Amino acid sequence: MLGRVNHIAIAVPDLAQATATYRDLLNARVSQPQALPEHGVTVVFVELENTKVELLEPLGEGSPLAAFLEKNPSGGMHHICYEVADILAARDQLQLAGMRILGDGTPKTGAHGKPVLFLHPKDMAGTLVELEEV
Amino acid sequence: MLGRVNHIAIAVPDLAQATATYRDLLNARVSQPQALPEHGVTVVFVELENTKVELLEPLGEGSPLAAFLEKNPSGGMHHICYEVADILAARDQLQLAGMRILGDGTPKTGAHGKPVLFLHPKDMAGTLVELEEV
Repeated sequence: MLGRVNHIAIAVPDLAQATATYRDLLNARVSQPQALPEHGVTVVFVELENTKVELLEPLGEGSPLAAFLEKNPSGGMHHICYEVADILAARDQLQLAGMRILGDGTPKTGAHGKPVLFLHPKDMAGTLVELEEV
Repeated sequence: MLGRVNHIAIAVPDLAQATATYRDLLNARVSQPQALPEHGVTVVFVELENTKVELLEPLGEGSPLAAFLEKNPSGGMHHICYEVADILAARDQLQLAGMRILGDGTPKTGAHGKPVLFLHPKDMAGTLVELEEV
């Protein structure tokens, strides 16, 4: 079921500073910041050879990152996203096995315009896992 | 400086259970568990198309994972490892820029038998970053 690691998301309190660290100190290729108000984040993509890191900064009120950054004020690894070929088949198979899907189980449109779902961290060794159909 | 994402490490309280989740529910290819007493961990590699996830369980007294799992009893994302071509050159460049290297700055031999260093999470947006020479 699992394909590639699409991205690793890191929540950061200061996107400009984190971007500068990756770009200027680690010499990585970084994108321009993109505001995604519907997701409550501003994102910078760090493009690596085989996958990407997404630096996420809260945007607006009620950002899904707010509680995480309250608990981890310096930032931290927020989730990992795996690609799947068929997100509805993946969901049904995981739910049948007793895994909890966050929300009402209906895929939402993710930051890349593709359908995504999140698995409950308690079912995934404490890790927030995103599945993205590609 | 940064090459591929070599692996994403997830600390887990129960390696057998986490392995079963990835193997049986997510249909991923997983390795046999490998005890690495010199690193204080037992590791299972989840082999994905473009990179790997390392599931880490504490091994023995004084495991470097013990404090992390005390803070995160369900487990969680522990570090991300980036490949570099020349670890001493990378270290010198980062130290010159004011970044802190954990330990005494001398590369150690990592889980794959290659020289590794860890960057201070406070300098990397709260994320523990491993550099591995490949």
